[in-house]
Amino acid sequence: MLLLENNNPYYMDLAIKEAWKYQGLTYPNPAVGAVIVDEKNQILSISAHKGKGKAHAELNAVKKAFIKITNSTKIKKIKNPSKLHKFLLNNHNNIFNNSTIYVTLEPCNHHGSTPPCSLLLSTLKFKRVVIATKDPNQIATGGYKKLKNENIDVALGVCEDKAKKLLYPFQKWNNDNFVFFKLAMSLNGTIASGIITSQISRKMVHKLRDKIDLLVIGGNTVRIDNPILDARLVSKTAPDILIYSQKKEFDKNLKLFKVKNRKVYIEDNFDRLKDYKFIMIEGGEGMLKASEKIIDWYLIFQTQNFKSGKQINYDLTLSQLSSHQNSSTDSVKWSSPVSSVNILKHK
Amino acid sequence: MLLLENNNPYYMDLAIKEAWKYQGLTYPNPAVGAVIVDEKNQILSISAHKGKGKAHAELNAVKKAFIKITNSTKIKKIKNPSKLHKFLLNNHNNIFNNSTIYVTLEPCNHHGSTPPCSLLLSTLKFKRVVIATKDPNQIATGGYKKLKNENIDVALGVCEDKAKKLLYPFQKWNNDNFVFFKLAMSLNGTIASGIITSQISRKMVHKLRDKIDLLVIGGNTVRIDNPILDARLVSKTAPDILIYSQKKEFDKNLKLFKVKNRKVYIEDNFDRLKDYKFIMIEGGEGMLKASEKIIDWYLIFQTQNFKSGKQINYDLTLSQLSSHQNSSTDSVKWSSPVSSVNILKHK
Repeated sequence: MLLLENNNPYYMDLAIKEAWKYQGLTYPNPAVGAVIVDEKNQILSISAHKGKGKAHAELNAVKKAFIKITNSTKIKKIKNPSKLHKFLLNNHNNIFNNSTIYVTLEPCNHHGSTPPCSLLLSTLKFKRVVIATKDPNQIATGGYKKLKNENIDVALGVCEDKAKKLLYPFQKWNNDNFVFFKLAMSLNGTIASGIITSQISRKMVHKLRDKIDLLVIGGNTVRIDNPILDARLVSKTAPDILIYSQKKEFDKNLKLFKVKNRKVYIEDNFDRLKDYKFIMIEGGEGMLKASEKIIDWYLIFQTQNFKSGKQINYDLTLSQLSSHQNSSTDSVKWSSPVSSVNILKHK
Repeated sequence: MLLLENNNPYYMDLAIKEAWKYQGLTYPNPAVGAVIVDEKNQILSISAHKGKGKAHAELNAVKKAFIKITNSTKIKKIKNPSKLHKFLLNNHNNIFNNSTIYVTLEPCNHHGSTPPCSLLLSTLKFKRVVIATKDPNQIATGGYKKLKNENIDVALGVCEDKAKKLLYPFQKWNNDNFVFFKLAMSLNGTIASGIITSQISRKMVHKLRDKIDLLVIGGNTVRIDNPILDARLVSKTAPDILIYSQKKEFDKNLKLFKVKNRKVYIEDNFDRLKDYKFIMIEGGEGMLKASEKIIDWYLIFQTQNFKSGKQINYDLTLSQLSSHQNSSTDSVKWSSPVSSVNILKHK
């Protein structure tokens, strides 16, 4: 038991790391990860919530583990979360009675776009449910109590600080708004269009543009690069645009003005942001400096290659929140100014 | 069993990652890592070989696991590897009979500065020994056969490609020499003395200076920064120096000339390197360009902070071999030019 306790944070870390890969993409939902291990503590599945209306982390992890144990082909075809729930409630055959699930957030206890995860885990009779932190959302909370009442062995508070950092954007956009700066550069700080070499990273940026409700861009970038700033690699959507510029005159033939169902503001301040919830700023050195005071976090795509050219020349002390290799050529990092990390710590 | 097989690479990856943290520091020995898990596949220890004359990875891992299981205080005091071996041979009480050890390199089978690890593992009767790759060193090899003969369940070849990359410097300095370029920079490629903010990283550089037999530095760096280039943070040693410079005149009052028991060469080519086995090059943009053709690998310390100032402006496509967070502020990466990765792949 001592050993299992010692291993708790270990598996929870895996769940947290997995969740970070979908940070922002789950808007307006929180990023959540889950890991399932069997009685031998062998990992059956590592999964996460991947977006609004899609399966919760627990459901994805249970599906993956079910496939690993049973090699069922039938379940693979089921994409709809409610149908997936139903299938598992009827076909679990108690195969999870000796398994433990680690989940970064308290399982939901309400019927939203999917049935409650607390019902799933208690019906499947998991031996143990380890939760990193309670759900701050008053509607969704209650899963912990429900599982306790069903006599499931539940542990709470494992890696809670890390889990709260993971939840920060969710809490921020629920309170007012969450603003992040997306920067793509080479190993040595070179920025240029097309600096990101991997299609995976380019697609992730478009997935984010599909989720955000406002994109802030610098006037010079618009004039020089003439970007479309839509999500064409993954969807037909395009976010509203705030062009941050002292000069208000722009050639209305520029590509971003041609996109349908999009508002475009041209303003010399950031007051507009208060009308939006989930905001991405794109740009280089100029925008970094101009927006420094309104940034919650930075999302930095960095290649492993040295590249000559124009480089970011800037001073800012950051604290890294997460980092993963997005492809063989790019890393993806979420970082926060040291100041706001302190705010998190005080939470 | 399927699951255990699936987990093999998982634990071996942990052993490989741990070994990378000591890459170079084990000279002239190879970097080796080991992980021990119990019958429930719960991790008892993760360890590595940390330097010449010190305990091998297996011995370090067994010591850590022994402490975790028994809470023995007696063993903690034993530092000498041979005494540690002896203590474990006499006091193991068969506590490892259900454990599996994952080791990145075939356990040694000869009496070197320490007794053979194959004897340790077979006497302690590990249930299973999982080995990533065979020992290319003809003297040390034979551990695999020895364990087989002692009826230990031995698996070979798990994560072999990764393990061979880990071994590359060892094979290179055994064949001719291994040359790596150490670079310290900010997130955006700024280089300046004191760019590395963490004491841990500065100490690691001094540990490397304590191991290498030649340090190559650019003439301008010597003239401008007047560095000592010794290992004072960790030892009294100092490597020989090759000042790479077209101009041969240097003020002999410069600090690096004052260090005792050190040869200093001033040359405009790299022919001198053939007389040495383990060589570190330090410098910036100029040295990067000048030495590009003779570099095996790059060791890059990078902070998480934006810093303004002189930046590296350079083109080179790299492939990342390892990366770990050395402290809350620095990351440490080993990378190789894509070309030499291809060489590795053909091995």
